[in-house]
Amino acid sequence: MKPFKMAARDAGGQDTLVEIPGRERTVFIGEGYCTIIAGPCAVESREDYLEIALKLKAMGAHILRGGLFKPRTSPYSFKGLGRDGLAIMVEARDITGLPLISEVMDVRDLDYMCEEVDIIQIGSRSMQNFALLEEVGRLDKPILLKRGLAATIEEWLLAAEYILNSGNPNVILCERGIRTFETYTRNTVDIGAVALIKLLSHLPIIVDPSHATGDWKIVAPVAKAAIAAGADGVMVEVHSEPDRALSDGKQSLTPDNFRKLHEQIVKLALLDDKIVL
Amino acid sequence: MKPFKMAARDAGGQDTLVEIPGRERTVFIGEGYCTIIAGPCAVESREDYLEIALKLKAMGAHILRGGLFKPRTSPYSFKGLGRDGLAIMVEARDITGLPLISEVMDVRDLDYMCEEVDIIQIGSRSMQNFALLEEVGRLDKPILLKRGLAATIEEWLLAAEYILNSGNPNVILCERGIRTFETYTRNTVDIGAVALIKLLSHLPIIVDPSHATGDWKIVAPVAKAAIAAGADGVMVEVHSEPDRALSDGKQSLTPDNFRKLHEQIVKLALLDDKIVL
Amino acid sequence: MKPFKMAARDAGGQDTLVEIPGRERTVFIGEGYCTIIAGPCAVESREDYLEIALKLKAMGAHILRGGLFKPRTSPYSFKGLGRDGLAIMVEARDITGLPLISEVMDVRDLDYMCEEVDIIQIGSRSMQNFALLEEVGRLDKPILLKRGLAATIEEWLLAAEYILNSGNPNVILCERGIRTFETYTRNTVDIGAVALIKLLSHLPIIVDPSHATGDWKIVAPVAKAAIAAGADGVMVEVHSEPDRALSDGKQSLTPDNFRKLHEQIVKLALLDDKIVL
Amino acid sequence: MKPFKMAARDAGGQDTLVEIPGRERTVFIGEGYCTIIAGPCAVESREDYLEIALKLKAMGAHILRGGLFKPRTSPYSFKGLGRDGLAIMVEARDITGLPLISEVMDVRDLDYMCEEVDIIQIGSRSMQNFALLEEVGRLDKPILLKRGLAATIEEWLLAAEYILNSGNPNVILCERGIRTFETYTRNTVDIGAVALIKLLSHLPIIVDPSHATGDWKIVAPVAKAAIAAGADGVMVEVHSEPDRALSDGKQSLTPDNFRKLHEQIVKLALLDDKIVL
Repeated sequence: MKPFKMAARDAGGQDTLVEIPGRERTVFIGEGYCTIIAGPCAVESREDYLEIALKLKAMGAHILRGGLFKPRTSPYSFKGLGRDGLAIMVEARDITGLPLISEVMDVRDLDYMCEEVDIIQIGSRSMQNFALLEEVGRLDKPILLKRGLAATIEEWLLAAEYILNSGNPNVILCERGIRTFETYTRNTVDIGAVALIKLLSHLPIIVDPSHATGDWKIVAPVAKAAIAAGADGVMVEVHSEPDRALSDGKQSLTPDNFRKLHEQIVKLALLDDKIVL
Repeated sequence: MKPFKMAARDAGGQDTLVEIPGRERTVFIGEGYCTIIAGPCAVESREDYLEIALKLKAMGAHILRGGLFKPRTSPYSFKGLGRDGLAIMVEARDITGLPLISEVMDVRDLDYMCEEVDIIQIGSRSMQNFALLEEVGRLDKPILLKRGLAATIEEWLLAAEYILNSGNPNVILCERGIRTFETYTRNTVDIGAVALIKLLSHLPIIVDPSHATGDWKIVAPVAKAAIAAGADGVMVEVHSEPDRALSDGKQSLTPDNFRKLHEQIVKLALLDDKIVL
Repeated sequence: MKPFKMAARDAGGQDTLVEIPGRERTVFIGEGYCTIIAGPCAVESREDYLEIALKLKAMGAHILRGGLFKPRTSPYSFKGLGRDGLAIMVEARDITGLPLISEVMDVRDLDYMCEEVDIIQIGSRSMQNFALLEEVGRLDKPILLKRGLAATIEEWLLAAEYILNSGNPNVILCERGIRTFETYTRNTVDIGAVALIKLLSHLPIIVDPSHATGDWKIVAPVAKAAIAAGADGVMVEVHSEPDRALSDGKQSLTPDNFRKLHEQIVKLALLDDKIVL
Repeated sequence: MKPFKMAARDAGGQDTLVEIPGRERTVFIGEGYCTIIAGPCAVESREDYLEIALKLKAMGAHILRGGLFKPRTSPYSFKGLGRDGLAIMVEARDITGLPLISEVMDVRDLDYMCEEVDIIQIGSRSMQNFALLEEVGRLDKPILLKRGLAATIEEWLLAAEYILNSGNPNVILCERGIRTFETYTRNTVDIGAVALIKLLSHLPIIVDPSHATGDWKIVAPVAKAAIAAGADGVMVEVHSEPDRALSDGKQSLTPDNFRKLHEQIVKLALLDDKIVL
């Protein structure tokens, strides 16, 4: 018997389709849709963020990402603009009409983040921060739950179960690579997990090839693989000038490379009759 | 500086295109082609093997696989028909015209295997059997080199280097999953490695989703992901009656499921303008 | 150059010796001492906890452990008595005079936990809960920082750096096994890490063989190995009746087995001229 | 039910005690003994090998190690003196009276190696070279079977089973570190596996801290941990001038450091009433 219950696919059950209300139209993540989340790793300045947001909108991205609180391994690294950056993201939404996703690491930030952000992201380091899971389980907001760096598929679904069990049915899973012995790529995308989640659970699943690989040169092939394996979308990092990025520039696509990837994803999605609005 | 030399992609160099002479026509593995290898895990009986071989030919497989010497973790498991099975494979080739691939584990089996088999497979457990690598490096036969269960990409390319350096340029790499902490699938397909190999090396690379996942239910999505990520083909296990298989039935597709997968692979290959003869 | 600074051993520097004020006497963790922390996984009832606490005191344990908030993979598992259990632990300290250690997972629990608990434990799932690290960095309390399940030695020392950099110099590291492909034991104790930490850092390090192995039958040999490798102590789970434990009974020693282990640890510590009060 | 049979400890059964006939006296590996194997990674020159052999004999080593065929990841690395080096090892045995251990990777080398070497070592890369296992299973020689880099404990015991089942009862297991995500040390010594093997099997087990850690600075603490955890001995690399070694100098002890380690191992062995001749 599976230890997860509410997250489990059951015989006659339907797939969860998460609705994200947008300014112009509702964005969907789940069966039948192919959804593309894009943006820079961190919000770094107003000018840069608004510029990239407009470009991404023009190129077909559905949701804007942006890090405000960056979980950094070292206390001496750039940690994000925090609350100050939130206003920039909100402005970008006002201009583009695209919904926003951003990570929350601290339960004490939930209240005000919730007022503005359209999807709350739980990062891989917080996947088993059970207090945080229970709190976001009480929200009326979609939650994107990244897989922990060394979390089994079962532990991941049980983390989702915490949220579901606290009352929030709108959980989106995000595979972002697991830690293995291989060091040529930052992490190893578990492409089989994408297929397996579709068998085990009714929850939507997307893939983040940027954090998973840590290398922009293989982001596009891995993103395409994700869609071919059945993922409901991807989340990719795009930066106007990756070499200037304060964090994770090495893994960011240029707008031009994003455009090419977007075209390829659309073709793949259409093969499977998915809607890529 | 990369420690591999002959396996490394260099500036103006061309991709290796491996030619496998067949009875009816030449089969290619490498850039521009999408090649499908199929067959049961082990050759078990003449009737079964000829039956599945004919079906696979009819459904579009390019190369027939079949295990004669199965590397089994336990000394008490079925180890294959050995030399006796070879005649069955040869008969299947005579009937179908498809070239044959089979694994060799012992240098002492190379001589007679070489006379009949069209591609010599080096299994994951033998990836660092350096004596074997040097011997197959002296052959005039294509070699399919599976990645070791815990081999880094660099170690894998250096194993290829052993073969190339011994004089045999016709090496095909095969990603077959790496060992990680995740136990829901047997191994974890390193889809990023497929993309990375394309950047680092001129050698063709295919993926074996059957051994990698150990679960037929996710073989098709992982095979599709492999093609989308840029692999030059796949090697899948197909058994007329998986439940009756003496080894690895759990991971074998039925002929009907293979047919469906084949159709989807053809569509994916055509998106990238690849030839799927 | 090492990315950690305050955690790094420097040429002429001294080892950190953490002092834990007790009711009867001060307990030390660090160079020259061998310190034994013991107790049940979770505080389950007043009677049981006081009983085992008295036994452990009599057998030579230096510090009492007890879980109040258990980080459980499933939302349906026993999660500990929470704040109610704290009174029980305090009563045990009053009776035995031994200092207390307990885990805090939620920043909102720090205030009242701090008033009573003598060492705050940061569990492996919280090792990169940076908000929590910064908060405990502002406390005037020793912090025991467990290594994350998939944390590298560098990431672990950088997590310690967060605490040190926030102003709290009293950090004790605790190796508790890492996640590997091996499933016979729950995790794999990284015994080399114990030796390496002694080279890289001035911070004390202990080992938790109970969580690391998940199997009481190998707790004693692993605990002995830890001391022989240079660890400054061990933290072991002991339960009066392991079969009745609500969590982790399988890995708990009986009081009798703890007594035997304690004798062996004393002998090993004396070989290295360490004080085992 | 355990899949291994002949390797399994059974209720009333006795531990295997391997006898290695020496020129001066018989050396034992197994319960009740603590046996120390030492020597350079590779035999490099007659002068160096005889010099270190004499030193090791004087300092209490029981068995001499020396690599003749080095399994090297790159085809361009020094691969050992091969058959030429065997005469040097034999001369060292004539002078010191110590038995010899050396690795065989190729079934075609077994015949002449067997005539001279006292223990045949199967390296980690060959742990599942089943043809080789079956051949050494037919020998009348002790076999030291190293654990594969990513082999589970069960796979390792099944590899031993291949040898036992082929007729050779004299198998010594050797833990040499497993591959994990941690890269600070070359591999991660699975100290729990040492304790577990003692529960699961009657076969002796030793630890190779040199290859496991790849860093001489932590060889001694890990070797001590191995003995404390119940290992029947250790195999350590010692080189007169590690900086000059053609392979693995970084992990080799100087003779002086070996002397210190030997003294500490003797003390630990005596604590457990083991014979360190």
